[in-house]
Amino acid sequence: MQESAPVFQDACPISKSDRIGLYKTILARRDVRAEFKPDPIPDHVLSRVLMAAHLAPSVGFMQPWNFVVIRSPQAKRKVHDAFLAANAEAAEMFDAGRRERYRRLKLEGIMEAPVNVCVTCDRDRAGPVVIGRTHIPIMDQYSAVCAVQNLWLAARAEGLGVGWVSILRQSALRGALGIPTTIIPIAYLCVGYVARFRQRPELEDAGWLPRLPLQDLVFFDRWGGEEGEPGGLTSRIAEAMALARQGRFMAAIEADGGA
Amino acid sequence: MQESAPVFQDACPISKSDRIGLYKTILARRDVRAEFKPDPIPDHVLSRVLMAAHLAPSVGFMQPWNFVVIRSPQAKRKVHDAFLAANAEAAEMFDAGRRERYRRLKLEGIMEAPVNVCVTCDRDRAGPVVIGRTHIPIMDQYSAVCAVQNLWLAARAEGLGVGWVSILRQSALRGALGIPTTIIPIAYLCVGYVARFRQRPELEDAGWLPRLPLQDLVFFDRWGGEEGEPGGLTSRIAEAMALARQGRFMAAIEADGGA
Repeated sequence: MQESAPVFQDACPISKSDRIGLYKTILARRDVRAEFKPDPIPDHVLSRVLMAAHLAPSVGFMQPWNFVVIRSPQAKRKVHDAFLAANAEAAEMFDAGRRERYRRLKLEGIMEAPVNVCVTCDRDRAGPVVIGRTHIPIMDQYSAVCAVQNLWLAARAEGLGVGWVSILRQSALRGALGIPTTIIPIAYLCVGYVARFRQRPELEDAGWLPRLPLQDLVFFDRWGGEEGEPGGLTSRIAEAMALARQGRFMAAIEADGGA
Repeated sequence: MQESAPVFQDACPISKSDRIGLYKTILARRDVRAEFKPDPIPDHVLSRVLMAAHLAPSVGFMQPWNFVVIRSPQAKRKVHDAFLAANAEAAEMFDAGRRERYRRLKLEGIMEAPVNVCVTCDRDRAGPVVIGRTHIPIMDQYSAVCAVQNLWLAARAEGLGVGWVSILRQSALRGALGIPTTIIPIAYLCVGYVARFRQRPELEDAGWLPRLPLQDLVFFDRWGGEEGEPGGLTSRIAEAMALARQGRFMAAIEADGGA
């Protein structure tokens, strides 16, 4: 391959309105398991969502992903069978107190969602030695996860719900879709228009686990390190979380200086 | 924890302008290793970027991440030493033809970037049995990667460059930051304002690897499966990629129907 002269982006292509669009999408993104509508996804919309995935970062620019787009009920049924088998095993792993609550949760929308997408990772995509993968071999799988998150956000911006189904044996998923053993399935996603999106994650509403206070998860300069100055980043994080809870986060960005 | 009644989002909170903001950010995001400026990142901006990370999806809502924010030159220096040691080993892994080109690549901006962020995964965050992690244990690490991608996009929307440094021995990184062995370092990120962003990935410009044609990476209903109908999704994907290359992708969304 030839080297090309670098071309640079315009000095300031991202406006405040773009920034608000990005944050609105991040705040509005949910893991959707119920309320999928059968309406088909237009090809031009799905193509944009897949392109967003393809423009994710990847270690050594290896772009290790493939996307298996599943629309036939027969193919979905095979994956759904694999889910049912794994989910029955999963329920048994919870202690008696949580088992019944677990069984009541709706954890996938495989058959209802018009489109399912399996995102995979091909570790051999770019030869044995990959820039940036020399010391942390799992980096290629992480790249494929970045593609999943881009896909998820683009879908939400298009008004599409996405649900990540991970209660599956990898061997059963490979069998259902004919995925070779050299390929790692990363994510099985249900995608479709939905009647509505929840304001909060479903497991938060269900009282399963609380939203953690972000300021408790941030350290400084070393694991466990506290911020030197009072009223610094830690305070601003708590403020940002409070604004988001009150639905006032976008207004704060709007009021911020700059273009 | 108490169960709460679900609250739903407004029927259509994401507008076309928001959608354009999301796609613009995804298209403009780069892995930045050079051209970091020393300008400090205001705390209210960094707090928004970290909040975007915290609002990523996580398996079983376990939110397994921590964020070590590194601003002291002493702490950065320790990580930079770990990079230098790993990078010398990495260069030796490439064959003679690529080794010199590898050595010429700038692969990190640890000392130049005003802020470094280490994103980690605490597998014990929510007890031994986690919804959705029962059959694919790595799901918690994948959740932390989703947080990385949200952070990266929010940073780009704020005009901040991010570079992911993965040429590090995990043991050396743990030693430099005092990270316990029970905690998995997921990503070491250099964050700061930059002089300019490249239009294309640096490794694409360098002729190291080409951008792959997305339509070749998409299968239908099973691994290797082709699309039944001609002129369907595959054609629209090729169109979307061509529009993006020509800088006409946003105009196409703008011209699309709907609000």
